[in-house]
Amino acid sequence: MFKNFILDVDGVLTTGQMIYSEEGKKYKIFGPHDNDGLKMIKDLINVHFISADIKGLEITKKRISDMGFSVDLVSENDREKYINDFVVDETIFMGDGYHDAKIMDIVGYSIAPKNARREVIEKAHFVTESKSGEGAVLDACLHIKNQFFNEG
Amino acid sequence: MFKNFILDVDGVLTTGQMIYSEEGKKYKIFGPHDNDGLKMIKDLINVHFISADIKGLEITKKRISDMGFSVDLVSENDREKYINDFVVDETIFMGDGYHDAKIMDIVGYSIAPKNARREVIEKAHFVTESKSGEGAVLDACLHIKNQFFNEG
Amino acid sequence: MFKNFILDVDGVLTTGQMIYSEEGKKYKIFGPHDNDGLKMIKDLINVHFISADIKGLEITKKRISDMGFSVDLVSENDREKYINDFVVDETIFMGDGYHDAKIMDIVGYSIAPKNARREVIEKAHFVTESKSGEGAVLDACLHIKNQFFNEG
Amino acid sequence: MFKNFILDVDGVLTTGQMIYSEEGKKYKIFGPHDNDGLKMIKDLINVHFISADIKGLEITKKRISDMGFSVDLVSENDREKYINDFVVDETIFMGDGYHDAKIMDIVGYSIAPKNARREVIEKAHFVTESKSGEGAVLDACLHIKNQFFNEG
Repeated sequence: MFKNFILDVDGVLTTGQMIYSEEGKKYKIFGPHDNDGLKMIKDLINVHFISADIKGLEITKKRISDMGFSVDLVSENDREKYINDFVVDETIFMGDGYHDAKIMDIVGYSIAPKNARREVIEKAHFVTESKSGEGAVLDACLHIKNQFFNEG
Repeated sequence: MFKNFILDVDGVLTTGQMIYSEEGKKYKIFGPHDNDGLKMIKDLINVHFISADIKGLEITKKRISDMGFSVDLVSENDREKYINDFVVDETIFMGDGYHDAKIMDIVGYSIAPKNARREVIEKAHFVTESKSGEGAVLDACLHIKNQFFNEG
Repeated sequence: MFKNFILDVDGVLTTGQMIYSEEGKKYKIFGPHDNDGLKMIKDLINVHFISADIKGLEITKKRISDMGFSVDLVSENDREKYINDFVVDETIFMGDGYHDAKIMDIVGYSIAPKNARREVIEKAHFVTESKSGEGAVLDACLHIKNQFFNEG
Repeated sequence: MFKNFILDVDGVLTTGQMIYSEEGKKYKIFGPHDNDGLKMIKDLINVHFISADIKGLEITKKRISDMGFSVDLVSENDREKYINDFVVDETIFMGDGYHDAKIMDIVGYSIAPKNARREVIEKAHFVTESKSGEGAVLDACLHIKNQFFNEG
């Protein structure tokens, strides 16, 4: 039985894009629908958000806390170690970036948004119908609920 | 004869996306063309806007009032009750989100933007040619006008 | 010989979308490539920009003046009158909105961006390969130059 | 052996679009994944960024310096001269705009993002699978690494 759902934030809850001004990274674009999905599964599985984006961390924290969750800053180098602190067979991971492909070899189940890097799509057990920032996380939550928590 | 046209705002008049800064939800992306459509039908049918988005409500209010309408804050839990205060057989509803699907079972006629959740698309009587934030509401208004108010 | 090229701004030079905050319409999204096109034809034909968007006019003015042109505020109701002040047979018009379709019946030649309203696409003499905000105006300028000013 | 990789910034690292306020060009939209690619090749080849966008230069500089690189302001007229200061046969160029096509005739190898102008796509030796602002530069970096630096 899966106990943990770990999601990368950028490119999963967001379009992945960064809106820059002269002062730096100012905005990220979060999508609709995803919060509906997280509410459906938060009592079924432990939801963890991770991000490697130091410069945009305060933006990320704000959105994640608006949804009632928290986010861990985990650099790309520390990501494998972070994942291995969980029982990996009980862990679902959702990511989109080039370096997320190797995490997908470790965890019990892996999910990629439709617009993830090809390297990630090839490894993922499930690819969402929606793009990131357009409902990919709701797709993932519905899939997890139906596939692993359907008592029907 | 239809007397009411109730529209969800986010994902119908907007792309559904939220532009976040460190301070929170700062911007929404509204589309072209829709105001042209609303002007065409506002004397034919009562137009009501609803939104469940408390954190973005002031942004929503500003755009809706710039177009000469007002918006009611209706949480997802209160949405069925809100709809049932209207004569549902005389009511058209346009929405895009997962939980809007059940509203579509209640009202007389239902419309979904092209990029609505699949669960909503499946229930809707009419699906627009344009995406939300790209003219979906003008499509809906032209359809309502031609389908239900064409005296030709 | 065509002497005037009149372009609507929103949905032609922009994606048509409006980025709203609590304070109102704050930003518009202008596209790449278009300025390259305008430079190519500005000595061949008189370029005029028009906009019906009062609330966003200062944003529009800023971008148009950054490119070295000016913009006339012309409401939808005044648009036919405005066009008729030119010799219409010598005038090319580029627009994207529902009400632009009737202007296309008046002018000598009409151009629509790929993502214009269907009602406009059906009337236009030429439809660009690119969407608005993604190079539609460069497409239009290259077409005008090759079609009407090619001395080759 | 290729020694230099010169990239235009707007429309290559960004979507090409400019977010305008009443005050002018305020924001650009940079994409995910590209920084992962640049890290992979920066020790294999000299990476140079160029931009002709004076008004948006401070925004560009901020993003490029956040990634650990610098950017040269090179106007369109000076671009050929700039390129010719390198040994062109050892130089890879990545660009997207109408006037970049002629640079592609000079350099040893040329790359275009999927959504570059058609005039550039036709000249490029390699066209990326991703659009600009959606990972085109990572695609380019992986291609360069595999094609020209694979010692396997």
